[in-house]
Amino acid sequence: MRVANFIVKKPMVIGHECAGIIKDIGSNVKSLAIGDRVALEPGISCQTCNLCKNGTYNLCKKMKFFGSPPTNGSLANQVVHPSNLVFKLPDNVSLEEGAMCEPLSVGVHACRRAGVNPDTKVLIVGAGPIGLVTMLAARAFGAPRVVVADVDQHRLSIAKNLGADGTIQASTNIQDLGEEISKIHKIIGESADISFDCVGFDKTMSTALTATRAGGKVCLVGLGQSQMTIPLVAAAAREVDVIGIFRYRNTWPLCIELLRTGKIDVKPLITHRYKFTQEDVEKAFETSAKGGSAIKVMFNL
Amino acid sequence: MRVANFIVKKPMVIGHECAGIIKDIGSNVKSLAIGDRVALEPGISCQTCNLCKNGTYNLCKKMKFFGSPPTNGSLANQVVHPSNLVFKLPDNVSLEEGAMCEPLSVGVHACRRAGVNPDTKVLIVGAGPIGLVTMLAARAFGAPRVVVADVDQHRLSIAKNLGADGTIQASTNIQDLGEEISKIHKIIGESADISFDCVGFDKTMSTALTATRAGGKVCLVGLGQSQMTIPLVAAAAREVDVIGIFRYRNTWPLCIELLRTGKIDVKPLITHRYKFTQEDVEKAFETSAKGGSAIKVMFNL
Amino acid sequence: MRVANFIVKKPMVIGHECAGIIKDIGSNVKSLAIGDRVALEPGISCQTCNLCKNGTYNLCKKMKFFGSPPTNGSLANQVVHPSNLVFKLPDNVSLEEGAMCEPLSVGVHACRRAGVNPDTKVLIVGAGPIGLVTMLAARAFGAPRVVVADVDQHRLSIAKNLGADGTIQASTNIQDLGEEISKIHKIIGESADISFDCVGFDKTMSTALTATRAGGKVCLVGLGQSQMTIPLVAAAAREVDVIGIFRYRNTWPLCIELLRTGKIDVKPLITHRYKFTQEDVEKAFETSAKGGSAIKVMFNL
Amino acid sequence: MRVANFIVKKPMVIGHECAGIIKDIGSNVKSLAIGDRVALEPGISCQTCNLCKNGTYNLCKKMKFFGSPPTNGSLANQVVHPSNLVFKLPDNVSLEEGAMCEPLSVGVHACRRAGVNPDTKVLIVGAGPIGLVTMLAARAFGAPRVVVADVDQHRLSIAKNLGADGTIQASTNIQDLGEEISKIHKIIGESADISFDCVGFDKTMSTALTATRAGGKVCLVGLGQSQMTIPLVAAAAREVDVIGIFRYRNTWPLCIELLRTGKIDVKPLITHRYKFTQEDVEKAFETSAKGGSAIKVMFNL
Repeated sequence: MRVANFIVKKPMVIGHECAGIIKDIGSNVKSLAIGDRVALEPGISCQTCNLCKNGTYNLCKKMKFFGSPPTNGSLANQVVHPSNLVFKLPDNVSLEEGAMCEPLSVGVHACRRAGVNPDTKVLIVGAGPIGLVTMLAARAFGAPRVVVADVDQHRLSIAKNLGADGTIQASTNIQDLGEEISKIHKIIGESADISFDCVGFDKTMSTALTATRAGGKVCLVGLGQSQMTIPLVAAAAREVDVIGIFRYRNTWPLCIELLRTGKIDVKPLITHRYKFTQEDVEKAFETSAKGGSAIKVMFNL
Repeated sequence: MRVANFIVKKPMVIGHECAGIIKDIGSNVKSLAIGDRVALEPGISCQTCNLCKNGTYNLCKKMKFFGSPPTNGSLANQVVHPSNLVFKLPDNVSLEEGAMCEPLSVGVHACRRAGVNPDTKVLIVGAGPIGLVTMLAARAFGAPRVVVADVDQHRLSIAKNLGADGTIQASTNIQDLGEEISKIHKIIGESADISFDCVGFDKTMSTALTATRAGGKVCLVGLGQSQMTIPLVAAAAREVDVIGIFRYRNTWPLCIELLRTGKIDVKPLITHRYKFTQEDVEKAFETSAKGGSAIKVMFNL
Repeated sequence: MRVANFIVKKPMVIGHECAGIIKDIGSNVKSLAIGDRVALEPGISCQTCNLCKNGTYNLCKKMKFFGSPPTNGSLANQVVHPSNLVFKLPDNVSLEEGAMCEPLSVGVHACRRAGVNPDTKVLIVGAGPIGLVTMLAARAFGAPRVVVADVDQHRLSIAKNLGADGTIQASTNIQDLGEEISKIHKIIGESADISFDCVGFDKTMSTALTATRAGGKVCLVGLGQSQMTIPLVAAAAREVDVIGIFRYRNTWPLCIELLRTGKIDVKPLITHRYKFTQEDVEKAFETSAKGGSAIKVMFNL
Repeated sequence: MRVANFIVKKPMVIGHECAGIIKDIGSNVKSLAIGDRVALEPGISCQTCNLCKNGTYNLCKKMKFFGSPPTNGSLANQVVHPSNLVFKLPDNVSLEEGAMCEPLSVGVHACRRAGVNPDTKVLIVGAGPIGLVTMLAARAFGAPRVVVADVDQHRLSIAKNLGADGTIQASTNIQDLGEEISKIHKIIGESADISFDCVGFDKTMSTALTATRAGGKVCLVGLGQSQMTIPLVAAAAREVDVIGIFRYRNTWPLCIELLRTGKIDVKPLITHRYKFTQEDVEKAFETSAKGGSAIKVMFNL
């Protein structure tokens, strides 16, 4: 079994979204104490390559990342982790919310790299978990209007409930592109300044590229299709840049601050909770695989 | 006949690369004098839309651009033009060089937007006129290594003569991509930091995307194919951004300075010269259309 | 009488914060209609110099600005103004709020240039009108914590009411600097990422420079003292950059959007209202000059 | 004895500009081999604080830097150093040039942070060693014109020989500021886009601030005076930003590349050479302290 270049050669622990309570600390650790409630950033970079030293450690080729073979994941009762990747939670942020810093980090990193701010009207294509956290982040970054497009009316209603200023139901048919773009422009008031493709297919990326204004940006967050057929030249000739995203960097402190201040509420994204027992684990994966109303499925010890 | 959205409805004057001598000036013009040798920036923007006011006037939707229907071009004995788009040439810059500010501006704008500097090793895909001016600009912006790829060995030899640090002959066959990338990486020493696709086809853009390092940039300058099939997801997942280019903005003063200081020499790009007579004009267009050794064909009064 | 380089040589109309109703439009104006409620951006730039073409029209040396000699101001029953500087107000934004776009623009421009976002904890030195609009803008740009320092407890209480996360009463005595910095750091949780000096004196700028973290920014908004004695070297050696501000550019659309969405409420800043009559005008200027509880004094026709 | 916050409590080894030959390597080091000729970056950062993770490791508060108390320096026959701070020299770059990467790094970091490129005309105030390396770096970054100001005619002649496009002799008297600015503007053709104050005194910083165009930048490299009295408000009101500099980050690979390609020649800066013996060391420090013709004094084993 493989995901991209990661190949699973033997049974391993998965999972990379987690939070917990400190049971023990190294003798040099000053920033944490036993008993602290903490969230964990899952990737350990080499800290010494050019990409790490330049502040882009998420691109480190030697990254050891929870659950990416051959590194075991965090779906465990205990994990050992470097203190600089362990972040104390404020009293008003729960462990569940702490674990949600991981998916939220994807949205936060995307908004940072794309430069979302009060000047940027935003289109989000895809209302799955990644689309939703990107929407929440875009709002926290001050985007004055956030419109969400998806094929699924149920997902759109969730997006609406979570604060989307408008939604549009799209098809998977590229023929509908022109009409959908018109609708998007109508709802958003004009062209989008920044569009996020949180799916990553020909149709979704074509939508993002076409809906965005001259001089705007498209951020490709979803990684659906390896070969993509898109009207890139028309977009480039309007100086629409395409921004790529890989995981995140330096996002935990910001995510925790956004949760602490209430600027983002991730609790509605946690739709199912299970105990961390053999029986419940199986149910949990079934629930998650089924999709439907499940957005995020959480284990609690 | 049409080019992109520009439709030719009646006979018109073409041409947008020009320089000349001032014959008359408006009564409020202080920056120019009769007799001045000048280069002309060909596009007149509205100056009042948001894109103009933000400094991105090249994206202005009301642009009147020499030779873009319905605006007549500059292939004429006399043109009337706003003084803020007319730039005096220093004594050591010829009218021919002045006219070359136009194509050079494309390379300069591309290097500016992509952020070429002494830290960025550069790959240029395509050694046509645009590839060559981009190469000249990249060197002037301090790129420590500039490697050029093309299918045509003659063009590559021109690139080499103009200062390319290395060249690689590529095929039009996508199957050769892996091997060509290996060669590029070998010649450039490692991955490119910034790649320019000065052609704009599946193969050339795939080359640019794949040859560029994690965290680098690809600048799409050539506008070959309207629908492009490319491995965009793999590039985005390494945070390789794609930067689009449309013409140029605020480039004439810089181009003239680069010519004045000798940091760029455009004279070798002028391969053919013709008189501006009926007979010669026809020959000139034939020469240009044939390609072969012709890079830039120049008319002199 | 003079302000900076502006010299008043004969009686003139002052005022540059205004909004009104369109009475007539030019024949080419499509973006506005008679009867529209609008806010006016007060400065007319040349649109053709390098600074204008680069998008920094606020720095244009040929700027004609309402009330800056010799250009008459907008404290009048009617003004004629270019349509690209006239912005239609949404139904839920009043004319008074429209006039407030001018001072708010200073805060918005400062926050844009300094790069305020959800990652930046902000210190604002000075709780006068400019300090207050900068605070409102910083919050709208997503700053997670905004702390305000001033010598005046009444002003600080206004700042607190308008949403400051913390306030600190400062002295005018430079000896108190160390102690005040400690208090600021305690209230803000750590060093400020961005500090705004909205006063512009030795003590206020020293506070801003010292309170800001290594790698942070200080934005000098207040223009109090022409020669300033400050610990600049210590700040520079921590790579604290000093960002300068002159008026604003391209801020009206954003200000109006911030008012429309309710992200900023400027109504509490309007403390006094007068009729635009001889008698009331004199009272209004007295009120404004007295200070005290007056923040913004508004004329209504 | 103290320098800034660094206090010398006991005898220690000084020195932080060095290059040498690898005598031994750790078992995990793959990037280096015994016998390699290398240059050393002198500071070891913690790699785990926020500043390090953000790519600004030069600001790390836990930095251990050669010769900054209590860390011993590199003026020794042997040093042990982490492999990620040890950079292999190409065949055409000597050990002496390798050692010069340290001072050159200051100029390179300043030019990077200030954004020197072919669009920026540069003024450098101060023609000491730091002024000279900043000038060399500015030229390598493509600055079309670099003008150098200093009080010392001998230093100016060195600057001229090293490639300054123009020089101006300044006084230490603030009264001369206006006249000197006029001369600078005349020589540079217009205002400077970026000015570097490589001295750090009232007069030099006033010169830099005043000589720079609206919207330009002043980079404070020299750290002369702890309290500085300067016309900062006038500069800020023209949106002249002040950029601070502390040491450098990620500069060795670039410096080595600039030396390899010959874009920078540091050899003329090495004016004196000594053996690393008791007797010669004393002479060397005397030579260096005297100033005069000494720019850089080099020890060779």
